[in-house]
Amino acid sequence: MDQSTPEPLRPRLLSGTLKDHDGEIVHIEGWLHKKRLLGGLTFINIRDRRGLTQVVVKDKNEVEKLRGLQIGSVLAIDGKVTNEPRAPGGAELHDPSITVLVPVTIEPPIEIDKPLSHKSENLDTLFDHRALGLRNLQEATIFRLRSELLKYIREFLYDRDFIEINTPKLVAGAAEGGAEVFKTDYFGKEATLAQSPQLYKQIMVGVFERVFEIAPAFRAELSATTRHVSEVTMLDVEMGFISSHDEVLNLVQDLLYEVLTRLYKEHNNELTKLNAPELKLKPVFPRYSMAEIHKLYQKETGKDMTQEIDLTPEEEKWICNYAKEKESCEAVFATGLPISKMKFYHMKDNNQSTRSADLLFRGIEISTVPQREHRYERLIEQMKAAGIDPDSPGFAPYVAAMKHGLPAHGGFGFGIDRLTEKAIGLSNVKEAILFPRDINRLSP
Amino acid sequence: MDQSTPEPLRPRLLSGTLKDHDGEIVHIEGWLHKKRLLGGLTFINIRDRRGLTQVVVKDKNEVEKLRGLQIGSVLAIDGKVTNEPRAPGGAELHDPSITVLVPVTIEPPIEIDKPLSHKSENLDTLFDHRALGLRNLQEATIFRLRSELLKYIREFLYDRDFIEINTPKLVAGAAEGGAEVFKTDYFGKEATLAQSPQLYKQIMVGVFERVFEIAPAFRAELSATTRHVSEVTMLDVEMGFISSHDEVLNLVQDLLYEVLTRLYKEHNNELTKLNAPELKLKPVFPRYSMAEIHKLYQKETGKDMTQEIDLTPEEEKWICNYAKEKESCEAVFATGLPISKMKFYHMKDNNQSTRSADLLFRGIEISTVPQREHRYERLIEQMKAAGIDPDSPGFAPYVAAMKHGLPAHGGFGFGIDRLTEKAIGLSNVKEAILFPRDINRLSP
Repeated sequence: MDQSTPEPLRPRLLSGTLKDHDGEIVHIEGWLHKKRLLGGLTFINIRDRRGLTQVVVKDKNEVEKLRGLQIGSVLAIDGKVTNEPRAPGGAELHDPSITVLVPVTIEPPIEIDKPLSHKSENLDTLFDHRALGLRNLQEATIFRLRSELLKYIREFLYDRDFIEINTPKLVAGAAEGGAEVFKTDYFGKEATLAQSPQLYKQIMVGVFERVFEIAPAFRAELSATTRHVSEVTMLDVEMGFISSHDEVLNLVQDLLYEVLTRLYKEHNNELTKLNAPELKLKPVFPRYSMAEIHKLYQKETGKDMTQEIDLTPEEEKWICNYAKEKESCEAVFATGLPISKMKFYHMKDNNQSTRSADLLFRGIEISTVPQREHRYERLIEQMKAAGIDPDSPGFAPYVAAMKHGLPAHGGFGFGIDRLTEKAIGLSNVKEAILFPRDINRLSP
Repeated sequence: MDQSTPEPLRPRLLSGTLKDHDGEIVHIEGWLHKKRLLGGLTFINIRDRRGLTQVVVKDKNEVEKLRGLQIGSVLAIDGKVTNEPRAPGGAELHDPSITVLVPVTIEPPIEIDKPLSHKSENLDTLFDHRALGLRNLQEATIFRLRSELLKYIREFLYDRDFIEINTPKLVAGAAEGGAEVFKTDYFGKEATLAQSPQLYKQIMVGVFERVFEIAPAFRAELSATTRHVSEVTMLDVEMGFISSHDEVLNLVQDLLYEVLTRLYKEHNNELTKLNAPELKLKPVFPRYSMAEIHKLYQKETGKDMTQEIDLTPEEEKWICNYAKEKESCEAVFATGLPISKMKFYHMKDNNQSTRSADLLFRGIEISTVPQREHRYERLIEQMKAAGIDPDSPGFAPYVAAMKHGLPAHGGFGFGIDRLTEKAIGLSNVKEAILFPRDINRLSP
């Protein structure tokens, strides 16, 4: 065993590409993923970054090399390609000559060669052994699709003149007021971990008009539900010179539509293997007011939620199903969010409601999409009403940006984790996070 | 003043696009960026996300609208395009009809209509008023180029089958051993802010072979130099199934070459305006051993550094200049880093040196590029020698990934801030960070 994989005589081929080399001797490298005996032959599956290659081992000396080797062993194999429709990728390797690059002699603590259970009682085991469980093909596919979503989102935004920004995660104040924050000693001062780049992205509208960021955000959530994690990856978008709130709604609608339809088009096979539901989206999402939703829900179910200021979780689910059936669209906007739910930086529409809408997708709110209050005097009023000191170090630069001219603007943020979960149809946001963090879990 | 920019009669044109509309009446929106009187006429510059548009105001009623308005006021203007070679973008607006969308009545605390001084004595003022100073066109250009660098890097990596990952920033241990870390209370436990995704990206080699991440990293650096900030944006890359350490060097070399030549090709105008030096790079960077550099340096300068285990900062500068003159390449590798400088996860080459090289660019080390120790037993030895408990919660998953088979692999990380600084030829890394954080600065 040398310190590097030795330079092979032949270039390494990846799984899925062997079919084009029928009859040739080729070279592959990868992990031993499965081993089984069938009719006196040893069949092994070799995993690489593209998938699996099946190898048929007949020769006794070669079979002997595999003795005692466990899943995860790293092998280099030269063999003859034989097209075989039943094998993954339509071809398998015969007459292999095996080199053991890294032997593994203990069994993995978690099965990685068959689909892992995501039942909630098994999630802890799954996360305890996450470093190995991710080698399972299904698990890995989730994160391959997540990487694609990130790519699609950025391409959508670049196409529309958005600039990517990186804002600090160590900040002097807490932007979102109420919610819990993590604190750290910062050379004798107190710093908090940013819950959101809200203030920074609005400041940056004054520079670039259109900005976005994809970065971690931190929330010291005491709840231990499937919805709550203490570290999320957030997409944040902000756009200036809007001529109406609708322009912001259209932006997030177009983004979600393009990104999801592209995912379902380019990765249909993987989504099918993950049992993802069929995607039903229309380019224009239905828009209902909160009052309308309460009314429709009451008519259908007999339950009166008209006194609720917000939608109940049941209503969120219900309206998505309703729109899916009636409008063939699983995403909807719930407009006219009440003032009692507003943040200090939202814009009021009238005395009851704000210029804001919730974007719901597959039964859950994935984003709140407001216009911001960009008028200096009104913002100061709203800050004071929220008990925030506009002159405090955490807020002074934000207030200065407004005082020195910001145009009408709006934006939104949503969790990449949540988007991945819902895009694939998983049941827990943690399944869409490589190494999730919650109240009970700080490792791996 | 309505709550939104009113829907204009004509679509908004952006600066730089007016030239194609000579003689037409068009609509623009943007910030008042400059106002001056010249020969009885008022000239104003309007800034938008693409640059500046010059407007000539003659009519007394229109001049009156501008009275008392300061830089930053948000205006909508309809006017007639007149081609004018001396105006930015080759055209200006005549006979304007001005609507004041957001009036600003106080002067900015920092000049934003002419290049800002980056002299070190002025940096504090610059950062104190960062939210407004970034509206300066030169400042903004730095971050537009930074956004482009991020895009180019990702495209390079996507093209080579790399998967983007998001790893946690709240972790149980400190990966880099010695360096200072920020700590936070995590529901009664102690968490540290990740200094690097080192362990996670190596774990992920076992899943995807090739991974990258661009994310914040945190270092409680007590130094207050131009080099030190406490929050950086790091690119981290890791690649498995390498047949030699050279393969990793080639990867970072190709990445840097492609990204920088593309930046200088696609953004030559902006770089010239920022006084960026000419770029001298060859597709293959010169590679010198540390010993060779000591020798060459001694020969040239008479100074004997052969007893130094590492390159001195003077030598780093000198070798980059040397290679620039002799080889027309401002990037070089310094190979054969001594074992005394190694981290526990580096691979030894022999008893003196590691399989690692420093990548130097324009006088400074921008990355260390090692092969990793992927052999379980040797890794455990090296961890113990470094005083690290392989069974501790922060390290156990990493050790498990190795125990269950990781191929030969290597990778690197470098700061996007540092890369931006050096790509443009700035003198302080903080100038390449929107809202820098150091020992004295936690806001804005």
